[in-house]
Amino acid sequence: MTEITKVALDAMGGDNAPSEIVKGALDAVARRADLKVFLVGQKDKISRELEGKSYREDQIEIVEASEIIETGEPPVVAIRRKKDSSIVVAMKMVKSGEADAFVSAGSSGAILVGGQTIVGRIRGVERPPLASLIPTENGVSLLVDCGANVDARASHLIQFAQMGSIYMEHVVGIRNPRVAIVNIGVEEEKGNALVKETFPQLKECEGLNFTGSIEAREIPHGGADVVVCEAFVGNVILKLYEGVGSTLIGKIKEGLMSSLKTKIGALLIKPALKATLKTFDASEYGGAPLLGCKGLVVKTHGSSTAKEISNSLIQCITFKEQKINEKITACLGTTVEEQ
Amino acid sequence: MTEITKVALDAMGGDNAPSEIVKGALDAVARRADLKVFLVGQKDKISRELEGKSYREDQIEIVEASEIIETGEPPVVAIRRKKDSSIVVAMKMVKSGEADAFVSAGSSGAILVGGQTIVGRIRGVERPPLASLIPTENGVSLLVDCGANVDARASHLIQFAQMGSIYMEHVVGIRNPRVAIVNIGVEEEKGNALVKETFPQLKECEGLNFTGSIEAREIPHGGADVVVCEAFVGNVILKLYEGVGSTLIGKIKEGLMSSLKTKIGALLIKPALKATLKTFDASEYGGAPLLGCKGLVVKTHGSSTAKEISNSLIQCITFKEQKINEKITACLGTTVEEQ
Repeated sequence: MTEITKVALDAMGGDNAPSEIVKGALDAVARRADLKVFLVGQKDKISRELEGKSYREDQIEIVEASEIIETGEPPVVAIRRKKDSSIVVAMKMVKSGEADAFVSAGSSGAILVGGQTIVGRIRGVERPPLASLIPTENGVSLLVDCGANVDARASHLIQFAQMGSIYMEHVVGIRNPRVAIVNIGVEEEKGNALVKETFPQLKECEGLNFTGSIEAREIPHGGADVVVCEAFVGNVILKLYEGVGSTLIGKIKEGLMSSLKTKIGALLIKPALKATLKTFDASEYGGAPLLGCKGLVVKTHGSSTAKEISNSLIQCITFKEQKINEKITACLGTTVEEQ
Repeated sequence: MTEITKVALDAMGGDNAPSEIVKGALDAVARRADLKVFLVGQKDKISRELEGKSYREDQIEIVEASEIIETGEPPVVAIRRKKDSSIVVAMKMVKSGEADAFVSAGSSGAILVGGQTIVGRIRGVERPPLASLIPTENGVSLLVDCGANVDARASHLIQFAQMGSIYMEHVVGIRNPRVAIVNIGVEEEKGNALVKETFPQLKECEGLNFTGSIEAREIPHGGADVVVCEAFVGNVILKLYEGVGSTLIGKIKEGLMSSLKTKIGALLIKPALKATLKTFDASEYGGAPLLGCKGLVVKTHGSSTAKEISNSLIQCITFKEQKINEKITACLGTTVEEQ
């Protein structure tokens, strides 16, 4: 019998909740019979979105949570006070083992805090990093940490590299992934204090295909499969990727609308251009996992549409099938704590 | 009588030296009669590039320097040992007052080290940052520091903001430029230790139009005129800008060549697309000044062509005309040391 992956989905989180979230869930269960989604949030609102839709009833279940944590709220306080929020209720389901994974497009801060305090870290993991797949010239790379731990230490970065490598190999399917550290030059003596301290330790790290430094220019060209950096730099990379991409595309579209001649040209190239830009669209790749938590915690864009939610849910199945957490535990040399 | 701006140009630095460097100099003196360029480097090679070209002889002068500092050389050692290198000879001309400014497409490390040790800092300037103009949706922003000082302190960032603001106002002509600090969220409590320490100090800084935090996503949209960050982050931003831009453009071109239909479309849109991409081309904006040195030190891309060299030389005239160093001195509240 196939094992079922159970995901607690925050139905209230994100700019397009609950409508796109529920749509994403319906899409995912239609694609995969081995998936069950708990829609966690305000029952009446969720029910309205489900009305008239057809789905297998054993694949979708509503779990009531009356409160919502807003994006602006201080995360630590919100997680502590809003015990009946969709994030807290859904995370507790992962903690208790009712669900294998948690997915949310809601408050990043609350997800990061809740991931650590409610779901909890795998024993031996010092700080769970946020790992995001970013589009490159001919595929994707994993950027880790892209937002969880500012002012990280070298020992944290080593673990980011190890966990990122496992994820890239077994979830994305890249054999012996090339791991590089973000630096401002390729020579070993280059870098800030953190990179200089981390570099030799990464070199010594067994089982890691460490290829050295990567300059930011080479990231979009696919210069490494796992791109390791501390969270401030990673967050800048992730957001600048989006910013430069959208600005450039906006300018090109503007250029295409500038005359009758270009408008005709635009019609001819439209499908090819769309296909090209799709490969550079981060939402194709689902959400960003917070690696090293017991159970899986996935953060998707605040602006997630049904497609990204659906892809994130499917990703949870692979994560479970590939026993990523067991592999992380084995690699970091300790055992998973009893849940 | 018009004042002449004298620039010591490293004729041997960069991937396209000396050919493109000399071409750039000829182009610049043809554009501006109030410019004199010293071509510093190996006389025979430079002479060959000048052969058959017409120019006003009082505007171009060759200054012999037999050695070349290569990109890979450890900068501190190179500056100390290669006394007759084009970089050292040209910088000494600025130090002695023979030239107002120094421009080079050569080794970044050597330029940064030489700028501090040969040309010297303006009294009161703790660390001269590298300031680069980057293209945005509707203009340019100044990114500072984009590579000079890793592991900077809050007091350095404050000065970067002040000097950047002066440069943007008086060289680029943006009135009361908006100054923001790169951060991973817009709320004041967000950030790493350095940003959290710097933020309140920037708020208190008189004469600065500080607008708060800027997320990397907003940089290409032109969210601030002066974008302040420490050098590691700045270097990542600068290089990722290039990397995402070139990857995306490459993918679009690939898409345009995918069928006969798209090829016809491509012909129709080509001029408009070219004009669009030109506005996103960093070489339009000349080089990056190392702010806060006595005299002006400008670093251009290693891959600089004649156009970028020419624009960088013209930029030196504005820098001198606008008395940027006098303004920096006045702002930081001290006086320029005797040279």
